[in-house]
Order: sequence, then C-alpha cells, then structure tokens
Amino acid sequence: MSKYLKIIGKEAKKAIKSKVDSKTKNKVLNSFLLLLTKNQNKILQENKKDIKFAKKNKLKANLIDRLVLNSKKLVSIKKSVEDIIKLEDPVDKILENWKRPNGLNIKKVSTPIGVIAVIYESRPNVTSDISSLCFKSGNAVILRGGSEAINTNKILSLLFRRALIANNVNPNFVQFINDRNRKVVDFLLAKMTKEIDVIIPRGGKSLVKKVQTISKLPIIGHLEGICHTYIDKDADLKMATKVLHNAKLRNTSICGATETVLFHKKIIKKFCDIVLKNLQDSNCKIIGDKLTRKFFKGKIYPAGNKDWSTEYLSATISAKSVNNCDEAIEHINKYGTSHTECIITKNKKTAQKFIKNINSSIVMHNTSTQFADGGEFGFGGEVGISTNNLPPRGPVGLNQLTSYKYEVRGKGHIRK
Amino acid sequence: MSKYLKIIGKEAKKAIKSKVDSKTKNKVLNSFLLLLTKNQNKILQENKKDIKFAKKNKLKANLIDRLVLNSKKLVSIKKSVEDIIKLEDPVDKILENWKRPNGLNIKKVSTPIGVIAVIYESRPNVTSDISSLCFKSGNAVILRGGSEAINTNKILSLLFRRALIANNVNPNFVQFINDRNRKVVDFLLAKMTKEIDVIIPRGGKSLVKKVQTISKLPIIGHLEGICHTYIDKDADLKMATKVLHNAKLRNTSICGATETVLFHKKIIKKFCDIVLKNLQDSNCKIIGDKLTRKFFKGKIYPAGNKDWSTEYLSATISAKSVNNCDEAIEHINKYGTSHTECIITKNKKTAQKFIKNINSSIVMHNTSTQFADGGEFGFGGEVGISTNNLPPRGPVGLNQLTSYKYEVRGKGHIRK
Repeated sequence: MSKYLKIIGKEAKKAIKSKVDSKTKNKVLNSFLLLLTKNQNKILQENKKDIKFAKKNKLKANLIDRLVLNSKKLVSIKKSVEDIIKLEDPVDKILENWKRPNGLNIKKVSTPIGVIAVIYESRPNVTSDISSLCFKSGNAVILRGGSEAINTNKILSLLFRRALIANNVNPNFVQFINDRNRKVVDFLLAKMTKEIDVIIPRGGKSLVKKVQTISKLPIIGHLEGICHTYIDKDADLKMATKVLHNAKLRNTSICGATETVLFHKKIIKKFCDIVLKNLQDSNCKIIGDKLTRKFFKGKIYPAGNKDWSTEYLSATISAKSVNNCDEAIEHINKYGTSHTECIITKNKKTAQKFIKNINSSIVMHNTSTQFADGGEFGFGGEVGISTNNLPPRGPVGLNQLTSYKYEVRGKGHIRK
Repeated sequence: MSKYLKIIGKEAKKAIKSKVDSKTKNKVLNSFLLLLTKNQNKILQENKKDIKFAKKNKLKANLIDRLVLNSKKLVSIKKSVEDIIKLEDPVDKILENWKRPNGLNIKKVSTPIGVIAVIYESRPNVTSDISSLCFKSGNAVILRGGSEAINTNKILSLLFRRALIANNVNPNFVQFINDRNRKVVDFLLAKMTKEIDVIIPRGGKSLVKKVQTISKLPIIGHLEGICHTYIDKDADLKMATKVLHNAKLRNTSICGATETVLFHKKIIKKFCDIVLKNLQDSNCKIIGDKLTRKFFKGKIYPAGNKDWSTEYLSATISAKSVNNCDEAIEHINKYGTSHTECIITKNKKTAQKFIKNINSSIVMHNTSTQFADGGEFGFGGEVGISTNNLPPRGPVGLNQLTSYKYEVRGKGHIRK
C-alpha cells in the first residue's frame, strides 16, 4: 500500500509541472461533461453496486440516501461542472502590482497550491466537484472517498481522467485511491509530506478530528459548525421567525445550519413563543435555558451547559436569552466554532458591532446561516468550509484553491 | 513554567478582544518611539549586560556582533517603527465586495490573525520590529527571544508595553517570555494550541527544524534559503557580473543571498571566468562542476552533489552549467527551497518562462536576490519570509499578518 501511495504522490507532483492553459482546462471539463452523459447507465450501474453492498452491510438509511445517484442527481453534478467552466481561470491573475522608489516592479500573481489530497465520506458528487475545482485551479488532486461509495467514485474519477487524456493533459491531475484499507488515511497524513501540499478532510467530526490529530500537513477544513442566530431587541418578528426556520430546518445536516438561537432579553417574552412554535410545528425539538422555558408555551427540554457546544445536525435547537448584543458576542466567541453566525436586527449600528466583534469566518446580518456555502457565495461550489484563522477561510471554492508568488522585475538592480 | 505560559496565552487572547482603532495604534507607536529615545542609556546598559554575559560564555564574534546595540543601530530600529506608522492600517479593509443574483451583499474584509508567537534568535531589533508589526495589524504577540539577548529584549518589550499603557490599551498585546528555560519552546509548540494561532520561527536551521517537527500549530517561516541566480545565454555580461556579486556578497548571512549560480552552456566559456573572478577578488570561495572548472582560471573546488543543496550563508558559491533554461528550472525546482531565484537575461520570453515555471515564493528578473526582504518590498519590514505553499508566502510584513472574514448582509434572505 505505501509503495502504491508514494507512486500516486510522485505522479501528482509530476503532473503539476505542466502548466495547462485556460482554454484546455475548459476543454477538459467539457469532455468530462460529455463523458458523464454518454456513460450515465454505466455510472448508475456502478452506483447500484455500492448501494447493494451498503444495504448488505446495513448502512443507515440517511447514509444510503446520500450515496444514491439517479438521473436527477447527475443533472445537478453536471450543473456544477458547467458553473465551474463559466468561472474565470483563477491562476496567473495579477493580484497586486506596484513600483518601488528604486524602480523595481513587483507583482503578486496567483498560483496553484500544488498537490491536494481530499479525504471525504459518502456523497459521490464530491468526486466530480472537487476534481473539477482542483483541476481548474491548476492543482493535482488525490481522492480518497468513503469506502461505501468506492465503485461510484472510481467510475467518476476514471471518466475525469479520460477527459484529461482526450485533451492530451496528464491524467494524474486526478487520481483516485483504489484501496479500502483504513490505514491509507494514516499513511497519507503522516508519511506523504513531500508529495502532498495540503489535506482537505470533508466529512464527519470523527474523520476531521483524526486528520487534525495525525496530520503533519496543512489542513483546510473545519471540525464542527456550531452556528448561531442572534435575535436582537430591534429585530423584526416576522423576519426573525422566517429566517430562523430556514437557518435551522432547510437542511439540518449541513454545517451551516443554526444550532443555537439567542434572544435579547427585552424581546424574549414577545418573540420566543412565536419563533420557537414555528420551529416546533415543523417537528423541531426545542431545548432552552430558564427564560426561554418560562416564555415558550410548547414542549421544551431544559438545556445543560453541554448544549451550547453541541452540533446537533438534526431537527433540534438550543435557545438562550442574553442581556444584550455584547453578551451574545461573548457567548458566540466562547461556544462557537468560528464557522457562521447571524444577527437579526433592524438596527444597523448593532449589526455592525456584531459583525466586527464576532471572530467567525462568516458573519451575517438578516440572513439564513444556511447561505454559508461556496456555491451560494458564487465560488463555483466548494471543497469545504475552513474555520482556520489563516487563509483560506470560509467557503473554499475555485479562487481559494490558489496561492501566490511575487514576480520582481529589475534592470540590473543591486541592493545597497 | 507551564502555568506562567498558559497565563501569558490567556492574557493575549483577552487582549485581542478589544479592537484598537487606527489612530490609537499610531499613538502607541509614537509613544514607543519617544520612550526609545528617552531611555536610550538604559537600553544600552541592558544590552551591555547581555554582551558581557555573551563574552563570558565565549559566544562567537559574529553572534556578538548581531547582539550589540549602539546609537546607530537604535536609529535604524526607530526608523523601522516610523515606517510602520506611515503604513495604512491593514485591518478592516474591504478586499472584495460583490452582490449575488439574489441580492445578498458579500464583503471579504481583512482581520487580524489572532495571537502570534515568535521564536527568534539574537538580533534585538526583532523585538521592536515584530511588536510594532503585530500590534499595528491587530494581533497580540508572544515574544520568545534568544537567551543571549534576554536583557535587551526585556527592556525593549517593556517600553512597548509602557507605550500601550500610556494610551489606555491592554499591555498584553505584547508579552515577553522572561524565562531562559529551553523547554519553553517545546511547551509553546505542543501545548498551547488553544492560546496561540500561529508560530513564527525566526532563526537558524536547527531552530526552524525543531519548530517544524514539534509544532501542533500553523507555522509561518522557512527552513533554508538556497537561492539561485541563473545566467542565461542572452544575459548581459556586465549586468550578470554586477548583480551576482551583490546577490552573493552584499550580506552573506541573509536568507536571500544567492548560494548557486547556473550558467547557460552557450555562454559559460565567455562569462564564467569574468563573473566568478569578480567574486573571488572579493574573497569568495568558488565550488564548481566540470564545465565551470574547465573555464574558470582561478582557484576552484570540485562540487559534489551535496553542494547543490547546501545553504553556505558565507562567502562561498557553487557554480554549475545547464544546457538551457528548462534545465535551470528543473535544477532549481529540485534543489531549491522555494525561497528566491533570479534569471539574468535580455530575452523577455525566456524570462517569462523562468518566472512562470519556478515554484518559489519570489522569482526575479535582472535583480539581486538580496532584494528578498519585506522592507525592500515596501511591507514595513517583515516578521520573516514564508516558503509555505499556502498564504502567506514570501516576505511577511504588515498586510501579510492579517487574515479575513466574510460579511454577508441580507434583507431577511432565506435559502431555497
């Protein structure tokens, strides 16, 4: 196994030596689209193998749901590739350009990062999305998908490689690790520092935790998304009700879903019952502190300290009262995970205070936290959301998969 | 010790909770300047203690040189602070601003990184430079200077803290670890992941290697600077001679000094003797491959394979012939350390090829590699030069000590 992985790493490093121009990049993506259409039956057949195997192994229904491909899901996979084709090539862009007093010209120019290894769980669309994003940003990618989806991932990555070959591009820009062995991940993380430049873990908490513990490589990603919506004393009740419902319940399993709602003490009496009932009517479980329990007339469970640091990823929300915006900020910076937070208020000054003092990668005003997504940001999808303090932060899409270098041009300049 | 360090870390995290406005930042830096002038004698006294101790411990003469402060060096320390005052506040700048088709407004806004720990060796100017850069970029800094300079570093950091207090700013934006114990570094690197956001090692190879091996934190820095100057077949002989002399010999102990010169085979006969003699006349030792040994008439030592990956940091250069620009690029990407490389040529096309295909953080054309420096780039000095593939890369000055967040503003937007 170790020999096989080392070869994959070396081939990836070799691939990025050749610079692919923007036109060819899009030609490859178009060929991939064609191949996805031509091979639809084959793809669905391979996917059926995975489903069969998953059912045999009694995988949970929601996990099987994620795994299933059908013609509708394939349309959405192709739509993502089409979106990426439309985006400008992010490499070799002049980001800054200045002249020094001595006449030296300095340009900051975007470059690929290098070799990116992505470790992900069951969703097969990730194979297509990430291959397309990494390739268009000039990076080579090494894919390690969830073993439940191995056949689907294999065929999708194979088609991408065929698209590369058809356009005379080194197919090793995209490589898929065809090995179910769990030790693959450990080896990638600890023994491939020369071959891999960055690791992107995309999956549940245990996967990310493992990556963070073992990795000797820079990591782009996030462990949890404990996102907050704070309803200020100057909030519009109707807007708060509507936005929170979407932020919590539109899709409870994504990292941008709100997990805790904070109410300003001054409006909790008026707001809390209406806002929370609206969630409960959609089968959301409510867990609250003393004040919310006092004012919410529906069924409500008492919140323990642990609730403020729990990512439910389900139709459950914790609710808490705060004395003011400062207290909301303090609570969020303490219990949050630097992912996404929102304030609902009509007061611009309060909104500004919240936005500036929250440490998270994404801070919102009067918006559902579920917009925390590379596609929604216009980034052509995302390989994930980073809660690192150093760049890239937030949704990591096409432009965020680049780094930069400095080009310095002189006329025989020497330093004094 | 561990308790003391944990307190320092927690105090740093507390300090960055308060946002300091641009005006106050500059007030603090101006107070610091005043205090440096007022306390000049005191500073020189403290420095003398370090020198005395260093001599007693038989520190090498060049290390003592680095350690010495005098009124001239103090002027240059103050000049750096003045330069930083003149630079725009890098925090809270709108880096990007766009509207989504659904009307959501998204801004990418610069933020401080957080708490930065800097581990550095003897030069006392680092204490002042780094404190000023980190503070102006909104970060809290934890300083761990070389034990040889402990008294000098202590007084300099103390004066910075007085400047903070005098302007009602939390003094813990700058903290100095007053403990010579070598285990301090190990503890910082491995046990302070909650309190420190990034580590900057600034010093020799063994220090950086240690940091890279132990650290659980993101690192900004570089291990070595094996920088190259490639003299192309279309180079101007006079320019090549002059630029290489500066690139190698202006200051042999900085990371941007050229360590290897590559000659295009077509000009080696004509160029090599003149270019290398010019170095040898300034007491540079020449180590060469077969062809350079053939054409250079002065004293030349045979180069072994090891020479291509040696950072001499002294008046020694290795010289090699290459068949063409492609071979130069290949050699550099193989043996270089992603720091700084230069091509000397009149041919713009060849220069472009070199610049685009070299993987280093800084790539130059007709310029001395010694310009690889934050001050020379106009960055208001630097905390170091990063050879990471991920940002920040290259010289890390004021702007590079920031990260960013996304501010998303809506009007009750919900996601479909």
